[in-house]
Amino acid sequence: MKTVETYLTPQDLAQNFSDFHAVDLVQFLAMYSSEELAQFCSLISKHQLAAIIEQSDLNLLLRIVQQLSIENLLKVFSYMSKDDVADMLGELPIALRKSLLNKMKENDRVILTSLLGYPNDSAGGLMTTEYIALNENLCVRQALNKIKEIAPKTEIITIIYLLNNQKQLVGTVNLRDLFTHQEEKLLKDFKNPNVLKVYPEEDQEQVSLLVSKYDLLAIPVVNHRDLLLGIITVDDIIDVIIDEQTEDLLGLAGVDKEERLNAPLIDSVKKRLPWLVINLATAFMASFTIGLFEGTIEKVVALASVMSIVAGMGGNAGTQTLSLVIRGIALGEVKLKEDWRLIIKEFCLGIINGAITGFITAIIIYWHYHNIFLGVIILIAMMGNLVIAGVFGFTIPLVLKKLNIDPALASSIFLTTMTDVGGFFIFLGLAQLFLAYLI
Amino acid sequence: MKTVETYLTPQDLAQNFSDFHAVDLVQFLAMYSSEELAQFCSLISKHQLAAIIEQSDLNLLLRIVQQLSIENLLKVFSYMSKDDVADMLGELPIALRKSLLNKMKENDRVILTSLLGYPNDSAGGLMTTEYIALNENLCVRQALNKIKEIAPKTEIITIIYLLNNQKQLVGTVNLRDLFTHQEEKLLKDFKNPNVLKVYPEEDQEQVSLLVSKYDLLAIPVVNHRDLLLGIITVDDIIDVIIDEQTEDLLGLAGVDKEERLNAPLIDSVKKRLPWLVINLATAFMASFTIGLFEGTIEKVVALASVMSIVAGMGGNAGTQTLSLVIRGIALGEVKLKEDWRLIIKEFCLGIINGAITGFITAIIIYWHYHNIFLGVIILIAMMGNLVIAGVFGFTIPLVLKKLNIDPALASSIFLTTMTDVGGFFIFLGLAQLFLAYLI
Repeated sequence: MKTVETYLTPQDLAQNFSDFHAVDLVQFLAMYSSEELAQFCSLISKHQLAAIIEQSDLNLLLRIVQQLSIENLLKVFSYMSKDDVADMLGELPIALRKSLLNKMKENDRVILTSLLGYPNDSAGGLMTTEYIALNENLCVRQALNKIKEIAPKTEIITIIYLLNNQKQLVGTVNLRDLFTHQEEKLLKDFKNPNVLKVYPEEDQEQVSLLVSKYDLLAIPVVNHRDLLLGIITVDDIIDVIIDEQTEDLLGLAGVDKEERLNAPLIDSVKKRLPWLVINLATAFMASFTIGLFEGTIEKVVALASVMSIVAGMGGNAGTQTLSLVIRGIALGEVKLKEDWRLIIKEFCLGIINGAITGFITAIIIYWHYHNIFLGVIILIAMMGNLVIAGVFGFTIPLVLKKLNIDPALASSIFLTTMTDVGGFFIFLGLAQLFLAYLI
Repeated sequence: MKTVETYLTPQDLAQNFSDFHAVDLVQFLAMYSSEELAQFCSLISKHQLAAIIEQSDLNLLLRIVQQLSIENLLKVFSYMSKDDVADMLGELPIALRKSLLNKMKENDRVILTSLLGYPNDSAGGLMTTEYIALNENLCVRQALNKIKEIAPKTEIITIIYLLNNQKQLVGTVNLRDLFTHQEEKLLKDFKNPNVLKVYPEEDQEQVSLLVSKYDLLAIPVVNHRDLLLGIITVDDIIDVIIDEQTEDLLGLAGVDKEERLNAPLIDSVKKRLPWLVINLATAFMASFTIGLFEGTIEKVVALASVMSIVAGMGGNAGTQTLSLVIRGIALGEVKLKEDWRLIIKEFCLGIINGAITGFITAIIIYWHYHNIFLGVIILIAMMGNLVIAGVFGFTIPLVLKKLNIDPALASSIFLTTMTDVGGFFIFLGLAQLFLAYLI
């Protein structure tokens, strides 16, 4: 493989392209004039161009990019490795990157965002590039003229993003402000410098919380050097909110968020059966718990009909706490670190609600079986199980969240296990202890 | 944008007002004493005060209002959007509300009282009157001049509503269109005549479905003579969506949507206890069902431990179907009239999932109790109960919806009754029939 000592014309270099290593070529190209560079680019294949771009420094890169139509540039991308394209796009001026992105069809854009390495459920995956970004040093008149050009191509025109000369996001102005200020006034003189922004890797649920909390029409996405990458518009945020909610509601019931009622039968079987099988395991744990006390039940068969009340009520109370916590997590209102004290409240709630419902139950049971002890036992068992329900209904989802397991999906299975096994065990255990008084 | 970590004196906070977002400020003000609050209110401008009031909860709102004379309060209102003022007035004590309304300028009062006239969860209750409506016979230049006047006082300026000479809504133009058309062009010549609109009595959930489906920034509210009453902006729609979803998720678990985990203990008791008592009734129905078969259970005590599996699995399967239907209703995807045939699918789903889980159960039961008939009985009972679960999990919410009862709130109680009573009855009934083979 040769290296470049003497001057070679673009033609020579293009013809003997394969004789040189790209690393050497770029050093030589750096010395070319724009004309020579343009000539060279026109002579070689997109594939070869890609190899060169991969080795170019920012300066040469920009010079080469200037020689190419956006269509050609996109063709060149197709020969480059994903991460190199990502890096390169990061280097390009915003205007160019935008026009590149806009040239792409919707599905291409999805590919591109993944090219840039952003998962679909991240800010980077949600962002669009149809926004208006202007240099903060423009005056109102210049700004309005620019906006007239750009407006037809943009999604949100109410908010204008201001960049400094380093292309960093430094503030926003509202379109209505342009109407109310002097034509010669500079944008930076009345900009709002406090811009809420997110990084592309931010989770979509967090982004939606920001947008809904601060009533935003759009939120800008910046990289860690504060370069504006794109914006996320409120209509996409609404989809996210609905999506996350569906996930939570169905997750609690053990249904995949993708499932629809009118899905083919076989798909529904595949989607719902696994959850039922998991629950079967829980059901058996409860069943075996009861099995431990079959001897006692044999002697006092009334226990068989009463025990289901204790377990059932525990499940209901637990689900109340559980769904409040799940909702709190989704709305960013509850965190284990800050709110663990609330467990004391749930504990007391279990005592109180357990005492009241337990008392009602005890009376009915006594009136039915004429056995005061059975009533006392069920009262105690009910309080115990509702405390279990409250404490675990509160703890389980928060702990799962800490372990990065979706609490909406996994919580209820653990909870029902606790309230079933707990309920049966406390009630039947007490019955066994005081068996003498029950017979 | 800073958030408030450490204590700041009213002076500090007032001086650095612009560093904080109102949403964060109110959380901090809530901790101020009345004196500090009064001091703070006296230090900041009416405009800033308005921003804070818009974000305040009722408690803080009342404390702030006490600091202000009615005159000052009215000044503050002038900086707030009409719908927020309306919401706020709605929360104030009637006496204060009346005196405020009386002190207001005539047209303001008319607007506000009309806003107050509609229920909070209707389109009329959500709408604001800060929109731009122009006569369709204006030309682009005239329109732009008008907009420059109105813009500062409006919420949404991207969409301009066009009225004919009878003040009826006849179309919209987008602000960007004004930029791209000739100055002398008439608005009506490039208006979009197909405007999605709602009546003030429309339910907020229906409105939110429209806005999210069609990615609107705002939707106009008209009366039945097509006169424009106001618009509903997307930020309020987001609140509605989050609200409705919270209601559904918590409703399914029998929790009031207003309840918060950190609510006072006594409030939580009041909110959660009623649901538990209702469920107690269900639990007793199940218990009495079991009671009918105590004679059988006495002879084959194993039934006591096994029966809980049948009932439990029915509950799980039913909840899967139920939450899918609830979600479908909320998203407007399911209607009894059009989709009743899906009940057949849920029926088959019950057969299949019941057969599979029932078979697994049967094997384990046989291995445990060495009684083939017990296995067969539980298999049949499981299939029967999962069919009940599917059919009723599908029907109950749709029927309740037809009866204008919130399905999210009332469905689960009916469903669990069906699956518990049904499960115990089928299983124990079969056991009694084939008792001879079980002993």
